[in-house]
Amino acid sequence: MGDRNQALRLTDEQRIDWLRLIRSQNVGPSTFRALINHFGGARAALDALPALARRGGGNTAPRICTQEEAERELAAARKLGVSLVAIGEADYPARLQMIDDAPPLLALRGNTSVLSQPLVAIVGSRNASAAGIKLAQRFAHELGEAGFAVVSGLARGIDAAAHRASLSTGTIAVLAGGQDRIYPAEHTDLLASILPSGAAVTEMPMGWEPRGRDFPRRNRLISGLSLGVIIVEAAKRSGSLITARFALEQGREVFAVPGSPLDPRAEGTNGLIKQGATCATETSDVISVLEPIIGLATPAREPDIEGEEPGTDAELAADERSRIIELLSPTPIAVDDLVRLSASSPRTVRIVLLELEIAGRLERHGGSLVSLRG
Amino acid sequence: MGDRNQALRLTDEQRIDWLRLIRSQNVGPSTFRALINHFGGARAALDALPALARRGGGNTAPRICTQEEAERELAAARKLGVSLVAIGEADYPARLQMIDDAPPLLALRGNTSVLSQPLVAIVGSRNASAAGIKLAQRFAHELGEAGFAVVSGLARGIDAAAHRASLSTGTIAVLAGGQDRIYPAEHTDLLASILPSGAAVTEMPMGWEPRGRDFPRRNRLISGLSLGVIIVEAAKRSGSLITARFALEQGREVFAVPGSPLDPRAEGTNGLIKQGATCATETSDVISVLEPIIGLATPAREPDIEGEEPGTDAELAADERSRIIELLSPTPIAVDDLVRLSASSPRTVRIVLLELEIAGRLERHGGSLVSLRG
Repeated sequence: MGDRNQALRLTDEQRIDWLRLIRSQNVGPSTFRALINHFGGARAALDALPALARRGGGNTAPRICTQEEAERELAAARKLGVSLVAIGEADYPARLQMIDDAPPLLALRGNTSVLSQPLVAIVGSRNASAAGIKLAQRFAHELGEAGFAVVSGLARGIDAAAHRASLSTGTIAVLAGGQDRIYPAEHTDLLASILPSGAAVTEMPMGWEPRGRDFPRRNRLISGLSLGVIIVEAAKRSGSLITARFALEQGREVFAVPGSPLDPRAEGTNGLIKQGATCATETSDVISVLEPIIGLATPAREPDIEGEEPGTDAELAADERSRIIELLSPTPIAVDDLVRLSASSPRTVRIVLLELEIAGRLERHGGSLVSLRG
Repeated sequence: MGDRNQALRLTDEQRIDWLRLIRSQNVGPSTFRALINHFGGARAALDALPALARRGGGNTAPRICTQEEAERELAAARKLGVSLVAIGEADYPARLQMIDDAPPLLALRGNTSVLSQPLVAIVGSRNASAAGIKLAQRFAHELGEAGFAVVSGLARGIDAAAHRASLSTGTIAVLAGGQDRIYPAEHTDLLASILPSGAAVTEMPMGWEPRGRDFPRRNRLISGLSLGVIIVEAAKRSGSLITARFALEQGREVFAVPGSPLDPRAEGTNGLIKQGATCATETSDVISVLEPIIGLATPAREPDIEGEEPGTDAELAADERSRIIELLSPTPIAVDDLVRLSASSPRTVRIVLLELEIAGRLERHGGSLVSLRG
């Protein structure tokens, strides 16, 4: 589907297939990528799902998103002014494309050209102090003046302060739920004032009410969109620290605003500084690090989503499959080790893992580790 | 005067000569070292001072401390329980000996065995916040419990808090004036409560009232005594930052306690963290860095104070001297460059610099830079 320099452009039919595949049960961004790689396209992958699940030993067939459901979601999106942009398409944010588990489809709303500005995230405590709010505003305002758009999570406290201070220069709210399910509801007006020059982004379906576990997952998009992340105030074990961890894993810059050791809201940020985050007390601390990397082309990683020739797995013998499965347990193991220990080909191991995944029996962890669900 | 493993021990007569030499005009610790190196002893150096100053072009002869003045200082010291310990002697603090401009004689009072504990300095603002005071106390108390003695400058604010919290475990006050001129006067009682288990240290003569410029100079002893320095609160351009700079030059660890970017008392410490100081929010941050280096023997630097054979400078031709002087200006130049550009021997350059110094015409800067006084 086009070479590296030419943006992908899905047909309407392909977009429906992509949407059906990513909305089907047990298919996340990584599985989506693996399926497309293996079967050569979303339609072929959809057709293969029932057989994969069966071979993977699922008790019940995974729920596959129907053509009608996908069309309904597209229509609802269109009605709200939301477009569903596929990874590799021109409107898909360049840096987000480079993370391991980039969403295959992103729901965008607002002035989407803001996504091609240099992006910097500002996140922090919901129960922020007055000082934290003031600092978030200062960073957001000054970064906006300097040509950055500000990414945050539309939460109370630091997030809202960062968005508000960059309304005129451009700000991006990354949502944990669907585009029509704004959380917290009291920020519906804030989002409305973001959209004229900024944008709202989510990977979740229309109508999706965000649950607790959707927020950490969403945080990988906040860092993934951005050149760097500023954490303004964060207690120990707060969501902002999860965003910082994602940023590190994604090779993004991490900035932390210091605070008194007696202030519990500074425990997280001081801890980040001890671990090597850049200590940021003023906007120039951030700009001096980010400015040199703005100009750098986004690392040109071929979206490997359309790499391999579709293959057949008829030749996969039952005993080879069971030998691989026997090596798995609830303790995570590296896929590479699995290949080595099973003496099967990487391709064979991958297809067995896919089968288990679609059957709902496999869990993927960071660093290419996999385990059986307990 | 003894090999490396055997401590120096001055005779009474030598101690008087050392005291006379260091108390003479235009003789600081570096000049003292150079003079002893060149002339082989304090007595020979004292005898040479008038001729050196003449050759260096001084308008008036430098004031040389008399035998009677030195004896009077020794007697006054003894009366107050102050001993004058020479560099290289057993009671001289081991790490202080290693700094470039270590005082040849140190006036010590109190329980001087405290100086052989592992030492850590805690310094900070005089107009400290309540939070800063609390943190200084916490660090001082916990470091005392962990076996460190706490070094500070007896100032109001952070210094006093650090001393008070480590009275029972041992604390060392480094003075900017004489042992009988406590500043601020209101801390006379504090010093009295330090002495039973701690100590007071100064390089200044008995009776010396500290002036403004004596405090930064004193700060090099605070860091020089210690394995590391904790800066608790410091505004921009504060004395504590001078201590931090000395610590860096001396290869000591620098710890800074972070604070809110909106708090002017944290500007200095946050700045230090940005420059690479260790961010310290709790005592374990300090101990984990210092513990591994306590056990390390103090770098065994031969006190070169008695190195060379005494030489003669009769052979130094007038034109060689003037050629070297012509290379000097109010702009600092490295001694090495002076040797190279003059094509004179290092020894010759050193003696000409000594002459200028004793004549009051030379200024020494950090990094072996010298300049003519404007």
